[in-house]
Amino acid sequence: MEKIKIGILGLGTVGAGVVHLLDEQRDLITRRLGVEVVVSRIADRSAGRKSAKGVVPENLNTDAEGLIDDPEVDIVAELIGGTEDARSHILRALGNGKPVVTANKAVLAVHGEEIFALAEKMDCPLGYEASVAGGIPIVRNLREAFAADRIEGISGILNGTCNYILTAMTEDGAAFDDTLRKAQELGYAEADPSFDIDGIDASHKIAILANLAYGTPVDIDDIPTEGIRKIGGIDISFARELGFRVKLIAIARETGGKLDIRVHPVMLPEGHPLAQVGGVFNAIAVSGVNAGPQAFIGQGAGAAATASAVVGDIVEIARWLRSGSNSRLPAAAFLLDSRKRLPILSPSEVRTPFYIRFSARDLPGVLSRISGVFGNHGIGLETILQKGRAGREDHVPLVIMTYEAAEEDMQAALKEILALGVVTPEYSLVRVESDGTKFA
Amino acid sequence: MEKIKIGILGLGTVGAGVVHLLDEQRDLITRRLGVEVVVSRIADRSAGRKSAKGVVPENLNTDAEGLIDDPEVDIVAELIGGTEDARSHILRALGNGKPVVTANKAVLAVHGEEIFALAEKMDCPLGYEASVAGGIPIVRNLREAFAADRIEGISGILNGTCNYILTAMTEDGAAFDDTLRKAQELGYAEADPSFDIDGIDASHKIAILANLAYGTPVDIDDIPTEGIRKIGGIDISFARELGFRVKLIAIARETGGKLDIRVHPVMLPEGHPLAQVGGVFNAIAVSGVNAGPQAFIGQGAGAAATASAVVGDIVEIARWLRSGSNSRLPAAAFLLDSRKRLPILSPSEVRTPFYIRFSARDLPGVLSRISGVFGNHGIGLETILQKGRAGREDHVPLVIMTYEAAEEDMQAALKEILALGVVTPEYSLVRVESDGTKFA
Repeated sequence: MEKIKIGILGLGTVGAGVVHLLDEQRDLITRRLGVEVVVSRIADRSAGRKSAKGVVPENLNTDAEGLIDDPEVDIVAELIGGTEDARSHILRALGNGKPVVTANKAVLAVHGEEIFALAEKMDCPLGYEASVAGGIPIVRNLREAFAADRIEGISGILNGTCNYILTAMTEDGAAFDDTLRKAQELGYAEADPSFDIDGIDASHKIAILANLAYGTPVDIDDIPTEGIRKIGGIDISFARELGFRVKLIAIARETGGKLDIRVHPVMLPEGHPLAQVGGVFNAIAVSGVNAGPQAFIGQGAGAAATASAVVGDIVEIARWLRSGSNSRLPAAAFLLDSRKRLPILSPSEVRTPFYIRFSARDLPGVLSRISGVFGNHGIGLETILQKGRAGREDHVPLVIMTYEAAEEDMQAALKEILALGVVTPEYSLVRVESDGTKFA
Repeated sequence: MEKIKIGILGLGTVGAGVVHLLDEQRDLITRRLGVEVVVSRIADRSAGRKSAKGVVPENLNTDAEGLIDDPEVDIVAELIGGTEDARSHILRALGNGKPVVTANKAVLAVHGEEIFALAEKMDCPLGYEASVAGGIPIVRNLREAFAADRIEGISGILNGTCNYILTAMTEDGAAFDDTLRKAQELGYAEADPSFDIDGIDASHKIAILANLAYGTPVDIDDIPTEGIRKIGGIDISFARELGFRVKLIAIARETGGKLDIRVHPVMLPEGHPLAQVGGVFNAIAVSGVNAGPQAFIGQGAGAAATASAVVGDIVEIARWLRSGSNSRLPAAAFLLDSRKRLPILSPSEVRTPFYIRFSARDLPGVLSRISGVFGNHGIGLETILQKGRAGREDHVPLVIMTYEAAEEDMQAALKEILALGVVTPEYSLVRVESDGTKFA
């Protein structure tokens, strides 16, 4: 084997980044691997309008299946995104016994079971480091570094768009809509931002991580998912005043035989290692029973960081090919017949402290009536913050941080409180993270 | 291969941790690996006084060489520490073609070249994740995740004892000697603490990381190394006032064909990702040209975290054995014949900002004479802090933060300043980190 030949499906931002990186770091990769890695062929639906350094024009065309079947391609890099074409390309390659590297979280979140099963059946390597958190090696660390440990929990900032928006709102005190618009102008948010800001992207990623950590398939539609649209600038500023930062967090924990998996905004104590991670950066906290708490922080997206992860997987698989082995590593971290589907814990059972902001009538006795309702539902109040006197609108913000409570109790209490007629119907409810992770 | 059989050399804290972890996580490891991992044999010089769950007494003895040569041992875990016996055991195992896992940074820092060469010659796996930063998967990430990228720099808090002492001094305002005594009482520092607090342990670890990142052998005696004995409580408190934290940092960077490698205390800006890592925790910042800046934070020591890393390596090697491959991974991250020894950059050439604290005579004109000397040497001053008026001793602390300067210019300026007769001969000089790493 004189060279390792890569076939790239999709010459978009990431595909072009991979071509660039393989050229730029050719010598270094050869010194680490022992042979050169070259791009032998590229398929892209707009092939006619594109070019790639080192690839002759006849090897850059629209023929994805021809690329996959080409014996001159040792490893297929699936970088087209989306779920359906990507699925059929990945299955075709694995079915040929050809290793696949993908940066595509959606196809794994939706069709992962089928893909993992075929990879295991064909004993064929499947790399997907780039599918979660860009350049941060979280897939590798869960599949390999934590292979000897029981994982207590994972919580991550997995969507750079949301983190950018929440950070900018925190720093500028700006409103959500204005910040989203600015993020769109800067290219940090899509024209249709729903996939990011409604938490769907993060839910795909946490499904992949939960599978790696706990050996459980997860249907993404079953993941309780809430985005950041309802976070007000006023909540972010109260959070700061109380020593918290608002982040969109994706969580996966096995608890009592169930999987506690969810995506939603949380208030993180300032000392929490994820709280200080701002801008478009991603971060993941993982806790192992033996390894203890760990955090991994870095760039979650971008052509260069994603390409670095894709080519890291290519080098890993090339090392297997060079050593004459088949796939030493289960694609899904666990052998398929030892995986079992964990039922998903209903969020109504998940106990955390809560932040609640009401718009309350500025009258004597309001606070005691509200706190009375919480007390009747067994919910203790840790902090109460009432700001200023009402002006013309005769309502004032009333902020409450509770002790740990189940969401079902919280919802019952809120229903009663709304019926009192002393607060407006709009309120903010945000979970408070109390896992106590602190590197100090 | 029905079971993977481990031979453990050394049943100390880490060895016992490995025995415990393999028992505790047996099912989980089997689900990930496909076969059981068992301890088949243990050698320990005090074997007569020890026992291990699941190991019959006749398989727990003092015969290290018998263990290494035993065909019933698939993987040897070298957990005795020290350099000479460990070296001969590791070489004997690798010479037999038997994979080795070690947690021993000293033997790799001192005898790494010989060990790596034999591992490559015999095409035999060598795992040493536990040798640096305990449970943090930095060896794996440098060998694999960053395999496709050029590494711009590594800086790490790699010694928990020093980090504990500096954190306690920061929090309590206590003096170094008192804090060291407390750390010794708590078991965070050895009775002879020199190995830790003089930076030697950190220098061993950064030698290993520099080798992984840059493919260069490093003689540990050549690493400029300064410990934390000279850090005064007053410097820590000035650092806080100026927005910095004092940390013992180990650095490795390739710059202009030379290796900038050093261990010394630094002032880190509060926003730097390593600044907030306190107590006995370790942390490593790595920056890749494409991957961008990353940070890994976790437990750098302790039986459980170290055992988790050791058994992670065991599982990885067991997967290779199961897949019928030899070592797919170069022990030293680079193929040996593609490594080259980088000359070490003299610290006198390294430009950073500096913190200097003088004890200055409280007389008019002193400050202008001192700043004049710095100016003559081309050293710009960013901050000057003079506290209070002198009391009976007629000297006051004078703190200066400079802009970037080469240490040789700094030393020349200091020599002249001492000759002015306006400051006492004792002063503090600490480099300021200005790499600008920030996850925001």
